[in-house]
Amino acid sequence: MRPVSSRNFAGPLMSTNLSTPPLAAGPPDLPAGLVQAIQQGRVRKMVDLTFALDEHAPFWPEGSSSSPFHATTTAIYERDGCFVRSLQLPEHFGTHLDAPLHFDPKGKGLDEISVQNLVLEAVVVDVRAAVSADSDYRLSVQDLEKWEEAHGPFPHGCAVLTLTGWGSRWPSQERYMNQDAQGVMHFPGFSLEAAHYLLDRAHPKAIGIDTTSIDYGASQKYEVHELTMHAGLYHLESLANLEQLPARGAVLIALPMKLRGGSGGPTRVVALVP
Amino acid sequence: MRPVSSRNFAGPLMSTNLSTPPLAAGPPDLPAGLVQAIQQGRVRKMVDLTFALDEHAPFWPEGSSSSPFHATTTAIYERDGCFVRSLQLPEHFGTHLDAPLHFDPKGKGLDEISVQNLVLEAVVVDVRAAVSADSDYRLSVQDLEKWEEAHGPFPHGCAVLTLTGWGSRWPSQERYMNQDAQGVMHFPGFSLEAAHYLLDRAHPKAIGIDTTSIDYGASQKYEVHELTMHAGLYHLESLANLEQLPARGAVLIALPMKLRGGSGGPTRVVALVP
Repeated sequence: MRPVSSRNFAGPLMSTNLSTPPLAAGPPDLPAGLVQAIQQGRVRKMVDLTFALDEHAPFWPEGSSSSPFHATTTAIYERDGCFVRSLQLPEHFGTHLDAPLHFDPKGKGLDEISVQNLVLEAVVVDVRAAVSADSDYRLSVQDLEKWEEAHGPFPHGCAVLTLTGWGSRWPSQERYMNQDAQGVMHFPGFSLEAAHYLLDRAHPKAIGIDTTSIDYGASQKYEVHELTMHAGLYHLESLANLEQLPARGAVLIALPMKLRGGSGGPTRVVALVP
Repeated sequence: MRPVSSRNFAGPLMSTNLSTPPLAAGPPDLPAGLVQAIQQGRVRKMVDLTFALDEHAPFWPEGSSSSPFHATTTAIYERDGCFVRSLQLPEHFGTHLDAPLHFDPKGKGLDEISVQNLVLEAVVVDVRAAVSADSDYRLSVQDLEKWEEAHGPFPHGCAVLTLTGWGSRWPSQERYMNQDAQGVMHFPGFSLEAAHYLLDRAHPKAIGIDTTSIDYGASQKYEVHELTMHAGLYHLESLANLEQLPARGAVLIALPMKLRGGSGGPTRVVALVP
């Protein structure tokens, strides 16, 4: 029950590129989705998908009961003429990016992901209704098929973002991490089957979610991390304001701290939206 | 001796916006320079203007003789199934953004700079020849007038970047900070007169440089910081690869860590260039 052409989106793009006068340097080395969205006048505003970082932001609770974020003032106006702080924080804190190196010893570190791959067309799969009935919900193949029935095939090389509604729980550590009496977390994520489906069909460059992990909170094996990071994808986690994005057509710009050999890091994520 | 029209750049932009069918939401809330550059097919590639962050990156030498950057491994594949680190670093480290709050107690913190103001047309003023003869060189009004004679008036609301060639000294702490026997640093910056000229004529939203400070190394009073931060501008410092940008026509995307109340922070800066 899917639209016949799987090239609805890529088609106009490629012809745009090919109609450009040939240069010695070859075709534009620019994110195609960005160029197309703007040339077509489809994008009309910027949305910030990033939570502000401070000691009140939720944190991964294993091994710690207090915030791992510390900002220490090291210069003050009265004494030093200016205000400066020094920071302590984990790589995976706040709205952040997981580099493939997080789970794949041979994968790319945070500084090795090319800037071209940090600007992608975003698609948003809304599973808020299912999540409201089940905090352990995992994005399913059925959710993805339903999305394609409504919006067409996933664009090749996009970022697939799951909107669970969990962002409304930020910054409550208790509600965002949602641990039970045994300390097991309960928040939604991607199912392994859905990840396989996306890898097979959409070849996304990234997947993202508005919880703190692509794998659901109760996961023991982090199977989706293992699969997708070994496939070279990066993850965006703890995204904010996902409900402000359309199901398709937004352009995502996700620029992380350039940590050499980083497993991940705080990332400013914005979207250009229709 | 300047071109007559000071609206060469803004003109087509505004007509582009005005020719868009009126929407209830008003005209596109998008950085105008970005839209124009892409609609005109002027940009052809992305350049990363960011140095990688590690313990070998140069650091502000006052009060410290060893790197203030520390990345401590907190999870390893063999034991934990994944690789994670915890970070320590100053807000003003590596390629970074100074928020107005750095010098102005009433200025905006890092998280308060709107994302619309983080995407700007970039102009690059090349003073490498003068700097090669004088490490204390400061960008002058004459440099700016010469730039305008060659390229037209500075676009309103742009980012004015000074290319000193200092980036080639990275990551040598000794050569990048260039301290003399008394500990005084010697690297180029903006002159106060040039900053006044820009504020009066170009109303830039940001200024930037490939050294670690907008004020030159030997500065005692940080006069350019004081002036421009109280005027609401932000700074980009320790930019990389500035020599790959044209004098005008590039679009800068500078996305900092979203530190609440931050005086500044590590920032990933990319440019879309012709």
